[in-house]
Amino acid sequence: MAISNIRYGEGVTKEVGMDLQNLGARRVCLMTDKNLSQLPPVNAVLNSLAKYGINFQMYDNVRVEPTDQSFLDAIEFAKKGEFDAYVAVGGGSVIDTCKAANLYASSPTSDFLDYVNAPIGKGKPVTVPLKPLVAVPTTAGTGSETTGVAIFDFKELKVKTGIASRAIKPTLGIIDPLHTLSMPERIVANSGFDVLCHALESYTALPYNMRSPCPSNPINRPAYQGSNPISDVWALHALRIVAKYLKRAIRNPEDREARANMHLASAFAGIGFGNAGVHLCHGMSYPISGLVKTYKPKDYNVDHSLVPHGLSVVLTSPAVFAFTAQIHPERHLEAAEILGADIRTARIKDAGFILADTLRKFLFDLNVDDGLAAIGYSKADIPALVKGTLPQARVTKLSPRPQTEEDLSALFEASMKLY
Amino acid sequence: MAISNIRYGEGVTKEVGMDLQNLGARRVCLMTDKNLSQLPPVNAVLNSLAKYGINFQMYDNVRVEPTDQSFLDAIEFAKKGEFDAYVAVGGGSVIDTCKAANLYASSPTSDFLDYVNAPIGKGKPVTVPLKPLVAVPTTAGTGSETTGVAIFDFKELKVKTGIASRAIKPTLGIIDPLHTLSMPERIVANSGFDVLCHALESYTALPYNMRSPCPSNPINRPAYQGSNPISDVWALHALRIVAKYLKRAIRNPEDREARANMHLASAFAGIGFGNAGVHLCHGMSYPISGLVKTYKPKDYNVDHSLVPHGLSVVLTSPAVFAFTAQIHPERHLEAAEILGADIRTARIKDAGFILADTLRKFLFDLNVDDGLAAIGYSKADIPALVKGTLPQARVTKLSPRPQTEEDLSALFEASMKLY
Repeated sequence: MAISNIRYGEGVTKEVGMDLQNLGARRVCLMTDKNLSQLPPVNAVLNSLAKYGINFQMYDNVRVEPTDQSFLDAIEFAKKGEFDAYVAVGGGSVIDTCKAANLYASSPTSDFLDYVNAPIGKGKPVTVPLKPLVAVPTTAGTGSETTGVAIFDFKELKVKTGIASRAIKPTLGIIDPLHTLSMPERIVANSGFDVLCHALESYTALPYNMRSPCPSNPINRPAYQGSNPISDVWALHALRIVAKYLKRAIRNPEDREARANMHLASAFAGIGFGNAGVHLCHGMSYPISGLVKTYKPKDYNVDHSLVPHGLSVVLTSPAVFAFTAQIHPERHLEAAEILGADIRTARIKDAGFILADTLRKFLFDLNVDDGLAAIGYSKADIPALVKGTLPQARVTKLSPRPQTEEDLSALFEASMKLY
Repeated sequence: MAISNIRYGEGVTKEVGMDLQNLGARRVCLMTDKNLSQLPPVNAVLNSLAKYGINFQMYDNVRVEPTDQSFLDAIEFAKKGEFDAYVAVGGGSVIDTCKAANLYASSPTSDFLDYVNAPIGKGKPVTVPLKPLVAVPTTAGTGSETTGVAIFDFKELKVKTGIASRAIKPTLGIIDPLHTLSMPERIVANSGFDVLCHALESYTALPYNMRSPCPSNPINRPAYQGSNPISDVWALHALRIVAKYLKRAIRNPEDREARANMHLASAFAGIGFGNAGVHLCHGMSYPISGLVKTYKPKDYNVDHSLVPHGLSVVLTSPAVFAFTAQIHPERHLEAAEILGADIRTARIKDAGFILADTLRKFLFDLNVDDGLAAIGYSKADIPALVKGTLPQARVTKLSPRPQTEEDLSALFEASMKLY
């Protein structure tokens, strides 16, 4: 169980210059994206760097939903800069890109595939020391400030994959809820769905003592170890916050209590899934994002087609939990109750349907697109979606219920239309 | 918020040799106490060290409820040994002693008082790098495997104090519930009371954003930062486990589920209070332990008088929470409900009395000595007890309600008899 250090509070971003000074940093790499580079969170960091006289270079070329090429561009920048510390200001895309830049700049002779998850890459363990990375999340979803995971789109294979190692976990996460006040509605919603699925998937993942193989040397065990009594605490707590605050946070940008709580829930769920792992919603989401055709979501200021990560994850959630519930029905029922279902007269064998119905109602209330069909997919795409899920064994094998290709087909089909 | 890495599971102690190998350790210091050195937890560690060919020296001279002198003896051993890693196998006394040994051996020119909490010592921040320390707790109470605190009895001043710095936090805590199966009844009870008070005190501590002073540089902020949304999660979760499992764990050494859950609760509460802090029960407990006369507790195999830490903490808890409840009554009422009180018709202004009554009933059911009088104190000792509490400002100032010397007198007096 590896857990990050985090600092929480309105305005704590202004301390980042001091943190870097305390870390002895002399050449800092500040990473962000083009949108954010003009917005208050980056300004707050720039002001703090100036105040404490921190020498830095800014890289604002991070791609929203990064690719292997956008990772490589950032890595190139990091290698040239010979930095001794990193600050990532942004959502999961920025923080993940910065983790990769730090890793490969610290291991300059490695091939890009060396650290990419097997079977796509070689999945080598990280043994080089990395530089400190301070993550300042500006969305409330990814939890990337607390995890050792960096996800990207592998363009050639049209599939999302990533790098997973405790070694790339940020040194410090600065959770400043002021940054979430500027998030547009759909970004709040989609990043909140990511929190929802992190919590639900990690709470229902295969238990840590039923996973196999279990490498005998602790250093070879994966970051995603299956559900366990510690991750469970974080998952349930995050789920309760989502149930209480997500709708409020979406509706009203001025609802500081709701947005602050969702910002914390993102980190809480991150600590949970960062140790327990996720399973089918995430495993199936990668081809849903990777095979995107022309969908352009509201509120995202980008020049390419895009299925936001949180949306790609949540659209299959009703089908997934109806499928997995036969293994831990009591956990599925408990999750449904937290999300508002009345389970007083519920039968345990209906747990999956009850959670699925609760999720559908939750998504309908929040104006979520009506399934995969609404974002451009049809039955004809299912074989490609299944094919894109198969390489995600790292997460799909954490599903409490094993699944065949036919099962995956059926799950995609059941997710075409939700309401 | 600084959180340790922990590994949990029956039998995971056998991996400690591999952990040390992975850390590159070549000369390991194994610390424990005389009793434990003959018992299964130390045997499990010795077997693992042998299996992985780890070169080590054993120090089994740790004193239960350590003193400045016993710390100094261990420090001397550590300095001579020039170790590159430490393994502490025992309760809080062993783990705390090992933290101190690691600290002063890593900072050999420091005076002992340099790192001791002000105002007794100088409370200097730790800037030297320490060696890795793996903690294997054998009781379910201290949570020391997750905290940056080491407590000892300062004999000359007849007061308990300690060293508090994130830098001395163990690198890894190995939570192996097998070790708790051999704990005698009263040790289970008293260490469980420590968990209970860690949870109650950290949940009711002054909130992090109301503490003062708040040093502007994060590096100068104390480890004990006041109650906060993250510590709250750990405190409440630990309290629920105590409510469900402590009585079972005390009654039946073979109740593996109960003992394993209390072992985890100890670590959970440790992560909570290790960041939020404790307040009056702990602050007042130090003179209760330090001024001990002739009390010798059942089940403790020691040759000196001793008030076990958990007992010294819990005896004042009914009086303390009756006193503090006027500040956060809803939190006190919530704690009472978790501990079994029926609060459906409770008035919020009675929260303190309700929690106090609930605690008294809980302690009575567990055959706890009837107050300070039952462990040898009388009214005449109150001035000395108050005087011994005053230097504990580091924790007493985290009480949600400020207290005068008269208040402290009244709290000790109200704790003379419980039932």
